[in-house]
Amino acid sequence: MRARPGCNYKEYYVLSHQTYEAAAPGVGRQAIERLFNPRSIALVGATERSIWSTAVQDNLTRFGYAGRVHMVNPKGGTIFGQAAATSCAATGEEIDAALLMVPESKMIEAFADLRQARVGGAVILSAGFAELGSAGAERQQELAAAAREAGIRILGPNCLGFANFVANTPMWTTPLRRAMPGANVAVVSQSGAIAGQLEQFAYQQRVGLTHMIATGNEADISVADAIDYLAGQPEPRAIALFLESVRDPARFVAAVSAAAAAGKPVVVLKVGTSEATARAAQAHTGSLVGNDRTFDALCLQLGITRVRSLEELIVTTDLFARLGPVTGKGLALTAMSGGVCEIVTDQAEAEGVAIPQLADATLARLRETLPALATPSNPLDITGAAMLEPELIARSLEELASDPSIGVLGFVFDAPLKEDKRGFARTFIKNVGAGFQSAGKPCLMMSNTFTSVNGEARALTEELGVVYSGGGVRHCVNALGHLLRRGAWQARVRTAGAQRATVDRRPATERAVLEHLAAYEVPVVPALVVRSADEAVQAARTLDAPVVLKIASPDILHKTEVGGVALNLRGDDAVRAAYDKMMASVTAAKPEASIDGVIVSPMRGAGVELFVGTMRDPQWGPAIVVGLGGVLVEVLKDTSMRLLPIQQQDALDMLQELRGAALLDGFRGAPAVDREQLARTIVAIGEAALALGPDLLSLEVNPLLAADGRIEALDGLTEWSQS
Amino acid sequence: MRARPGCNYKEYYVLSHQTYEAAAPGVGRQAIERLFNPRSIALVGATERSIWSTAVQDNLTRFGYAGRVHMVNPKGGTIFGQAAATSCAATGEEIDAALLMVPESKMIEAFADLRQARVGGAVILSAGFAELGSAGAERQQELAAAAREAGIRILGPNCLGFANFVANTPMWTTPLRRAMPGANVAVVSQSGAIAGQLEQFAYQQRVGLTHMIATGNEADISVADAIDYLAGQPEPRAIALFLESVRDPARFVAAVSAAAAAGKPVVVLKVGTSEATARAAQAHTGSLVGNDRTFDALCLQLGITRVRSLEELIVTTDLFARLGPVTGKGLALTAMSGGVCEIVTDQAEAEGVAIPQLADATLARLRETLPALATPSNPLDITGAAMLEPELIARSLEELASDPSIGVLGFVFDAPLKEDKRGFARTFIKNVGAGFQSAGKPCLMMSNTFTSVNGEARALTEELGVVYSGGGVRHCVNALGHLLRRGAWQARVRTAGAQRATVDRRPATERAVLEHLAAYEVPVVPALVVRSADEAVQAARTLDAPVVLKIASPDILHKTEVGGVALNLRGDDAVRAAYDKMMASVTAAKPEASIDGVIVSPMRGAGVELFVGTMRDPQWGPAIVVGLGGVLVEVLKDTSMRLLPIQQQDALDMLQELRGAALLDGFRGAPAVDREQLARTIVAIGEAALALGPDLLSLEVNPLLAADGRIEALDGLTEWSQS
Repeated sequence: MRARPGCNYKEYYVLSHQTYEAAAPGVGRQAIERLFNPRSIALVGATERSIWSTAVQDNLTRFGYAGRVHMVNPKGGTIFGQAAATSCAATGEEIDAALLMVPESKMIEAFADLRQARVGGAVILSAGFAELGSAGAERQQELAAAAREAGIRILGPNCLGFANFVANTPMWTTPLRRAMPGANVAVVSQSGAIAGQLEQFAYQQRVGLTHMIATGNEADISVADAIDYLAGQPEPRAIALFLESVRDPARFVAAVSAAAAAGKPVVVLKVGTSEATARAAQAHTGSLVGNDRTFDALCLQLGITRVRSLEELIVTTDLFARLGPVTGKGLALTAMSGGVCEIVTDQAEAEGVAIPQLADATLARLRETLPALATPSNPLDITGAAMLEPELIARSLEELASDPSIGVLGFVFDAPLKEDKRGFARTFIKNVGAGFQSAGKPCLMMSNTFTSVNGEARALTEELGVVYSGGGVRHCVNALGHLLRRGAWQARVRTAGAQRATVDRRPATERAVLEHLAAYEVPVVPALVVRSADEAVQAARTLDAPVVLKIASPDILHKTEVGGVALNLRGDDAVRAAYDKMMASVTAAKPEASIDGVIVSPMRGAGVELFVGTMRDPQWGPAIVVGLGGVLVEVLKDTSMRLLPIQQQDALDMLQELRGAALLDGFRGAPAVDREQLARTIVAIGEAALALGPDLLSLEVNPLLAADGRIEALDGLTEWSQS
Repeated sequence: MRARPGCNYKEYYVLSHQTYEAAAPGVGRQAIERLFNPRSIALVGATERSIWSTAVQDNLTRFGYAGRVHMVNPKGGTIFGQAAATSCAATGEEIDAALLMVPESKMIEAFADLRQARVGGAVILSAGFAELGSAGAERQQELAAAAREAGIRILGPNCLGFANFVANTPMWTTPLRRAMPGANVAVVSQSGAIAGQLEQFAYQQRVGLTHMIATGNEADISVADAIDYLAGQPEPRAIALFLESVRDPARFVAAVSAAAAAGKPVVVLKVGTSEATARAAQAHTGSLVGNDRTFDALCLQLGITRVRSLEELIVTTDLFARLGPVTGKGLALTAMSGGVCEIVTDQAEAEGVAIPQLADATLARLRETLPALATPSNPLDITGAAMLEPELIARSLEELASDPSIGVLGFVFDAPLKEDKRGFARTFIKNVGAGFQSAGKPCLMMSNTFTSVNGEARALTEELGVVYSGGGVRHCVNALGHLLRRGAWQARVRTAGAQRATVDRRPATERAVLEHLAAYEVPVVPALVVRSADEAVQAARTLDAPVVLKIASPDILHKTEVGGVALNLRGDDAVRAAYDKMMASVTAAKPEASIDGVIVSPMRGAGVELFVGTMRDPQWGPAIVVGLGGVLVEVLKDTSMRLLPIQQQDALDMLQELRGAALLDGFRGAPAVDREQLARTIVAIGEAALALGPDLLSLEVNPLLAADGRIEALDGLTEWSQS
């Protein structure tokens, strides 16, 4: 890696991979836009006997697709009542998008035709490629090469297609529903079956989709390309993503960042969290985190919201799209039942959703507003009095919204699936709407429990100015927590980093590693390398006694095992005796080892020990892991992780995320550790690791000791790739 | 407490509270049965102007209640088309159940009437009692006293009522739907509003209810009484419980046990998990666990399934009711999408649901059964091939069910809300049903995502022999995990304990506590009490050197602070010097302390330190808490808890529940700790604490040291109630 303008993680990542674009000819948003919003379509391999052909033809008809649709089949004839061309070229017309429903064996032939007809892009339904293993993967590479050569973008193979709902363009091979008015959620999925589930569920909840893109085997267009495309479209306001694996990390980071810049948050359900770690071999640091932890770190750093179920994916993305950016600390929730308030309180505690205590002034105003039976608090049980006097709702919401700690408001009430004769629900929800208007902050009405939302419920609430979700208290409160967390992410100050340059050295011994760290302003314990007992005694005298002796040898990793460590030595005699004993012991145990000498350092007292290690994720690049030393990190694997480089606030967050964080605040009467200084040191360790370039697998500081008001690296270790 | 026949927790608890029944005259299932299944009803305070009166009258009419309904209003007249009596007594008929809808101020008067009319029981809708604070609580006590005197059972006050769906008896004051055929779930809730939500949600999911009982303020009939009543009814097969607080612990334990004995599992959503602990004052042990942990322990011991949302409450109880007892280790899940299988795998990992690897023989048979594209595994992606050849489903389910590790099977497929013309779904589900029949184990078809279940979907699946839930993969898989866990609970061998007697002593000093523990076969470190430096030297010589000296004084709790501990002493001189220094130091620091002498013990090496403490929960009684010593217990509060007494398997479970459990298996080259021996020691500490009777607040062993193949209590401490 060469010198690069270091800044935050996103810029680092994108810039360090900037050659990627150049290596993938034909990549570009224009070609993709032609595919995803085609003026003309060819169904290649169309036949009335296929359920896929029938479904896509039926979809195009029902959606009222405005462009030209060509049927293409080598046998010609009449298909779906229209004369079929024997090839794309034979149509003699410009075709923006072709849907290939031909066997894998006919694929190369088909591409020759597409090339001749200058087709823009192709969706490949056909299976029989990488999903079958290595032979299939080879065929897929041939296919990708043919497409690249022909200058044609591919979606697939093994892919159900895409639907551009806003352009009434369903190139999708199973039956689909038309777009809902006001749709603003886009779905991207590597699995077509899951995309279908999401569409079904979104419709049930009356969440309108703008686009649905399945990427299948991703021979060319990946989820990153799809996200990048959607970032440029006006309709989607948030993107729901189902992810199995990221095939092009750099583009993924760039695409998610482009979406964020365009004000479109990405919500992801990524599977594979239970994968056994594949990194046990990669030094200690790798063994402390699972594969999936890197992706968690990435989400934290890129502002991606990670969810755990398909329901949560749609409910959360919908609220991002409809409530827009949320700023502020916490959620104010109002319900008409104390039981619901209690459930929400427990849930908020368990899931880390902030439901702040209200300010005294807010409580005082609520007390004036509410009937005597109701107790002002958050969550607020407005009681059944709201049924008799719905105006209470509007007034209470306004008061709650005025509290400085509140960023978003929730009101729990089930929209009726059918309006009642007496219009009670309408009156009630009208008052909720009035409250939402006066609140001046994002507001949501949510159902008590999970319920589907029919057209009538959606229409009534929209008419009365109320954003309503049928996700129920559990899903909606968690989703609002996600909105608040992303608001905080968005509000974070990101400072530009210094120029970052790699150095041309490979420190391998403890001493060399500590010296390298010191050059990056990591405080390290003083150390003198000596080569005789006399020198050891001299060195010890210059340090604050007591001292530690450690063997210095590039050939000895585990010093204790060969008698290469002597602790807590006081006085000349003890130092001399320890030196001689160590030399004898090490020479006997490792006669072939090259000995640089012995390190003399001051013995430090007890304090808080930390573990700080960097690692190189094969996919995502360098990352840093922090843990509290000893049992916490070794047994509980209590660590936090970020991709490098990090900034001061990242390091502070990492410390706070540790389950044992309280140890830093002065455990058993010990003084508190200076977290700012500790965070600076962690940032510096990251910088020191980055400077060693891409061959560094791991740099570990273990322990980093905070004791006696001092923070110091006591030992350092590196591991290098063999290449 | 006197001698009692000790056995497991349940028997201990019920027996130790057996005087409770005697103190509550009129308590008995017969009177409650008369109230909950009345042959005649009086609506007291009935008026056509009240929405409550109207709702209950309408409910009774719509349900076709077969008994006699009397309108009672002091003004007489015609109400709902029928002549009203001016009082219950004025009806001149026997009334089993009265619904009181009169103001709080008229309550005593109303009770005089009920008494005169010999009414069996009363539901009290009226509010204005304990929910308003202390003045209201007094009024409620008067009410309860009046009812007791009159021999009338009360449900409420501040209570929406009950509905006995199976007897078509809705004494419920908001509109209700009639029972569904085959209903088998009962709902009990302390909140009427939440009961209403549960009824609504259960109907939406087509979960049929047998009973719904709201208990309100519980002046008399509590959730325990309701559960006890339901335990005796044939229709409910599982009970869903919404709980705010348990007012009568002993009856609660007895009722849940009665339900379990009748084969009716209890599933509970209890709020209050986020309550700040009220026990910080109660010694160390109390500060390590929150209030709500005791209830968690109770659930583990009584086989209660605890859930976290209203949706989960209904989905889980429904599966308990319809799938019946589950025996076996794990879940086999089949879906038609790899994506769903991946989601389930991650979820199972996160939520602790066992989805076992299949045996080689099962995999081999599946390989023969399945098409080439499908890979035999668990979860099983049966692929789209099942659409073309639905017989695959039946065969695969049969093979999966034959695996010895499988206790319950799940198949993911959405039942259609309307049958399609071509009967595709019917054919498909028929094959699922055939598979379920041949499986011979409990089987569930579940929707991909959360969806409501209409009558048609329920009827179709029932007709085809398929148990179907619309709870979606997330809720259903978790619910099946609950079923498996309860199956394991049910299969546990519970041995009878020995006779347990309390002793008449109050050990307070370290020495006395350790001696008491030793009497209960807890291994304790050897110790000799000496009163001079000479004696100390003599004692040290008899022990394996090195030794520890500790001051023995009932007045000194924190020995280290006053110089009362000297560690690692070797040789006569060191012991003598330490003794003299300790005496000087302690006398200077605590001149008024009474000194019993100095304890001489062998110094033990490093090992695994545990914390074992008992505490007395003000509501649930004695409990035991285990943690791993040091940072894990102090900073992370990594503890497990059970109510006392416990058995060997409980103690083994407690150790396994610790996040740091791996420490017991030999950390950093240390030998593994003998868990069986450790568990026996923990059980013995519990027995030793119980023997000290109800005035013992806490007995702590800290540390319990496992080192050098030895397990020993090194220190012991008790705390006693002031009474």
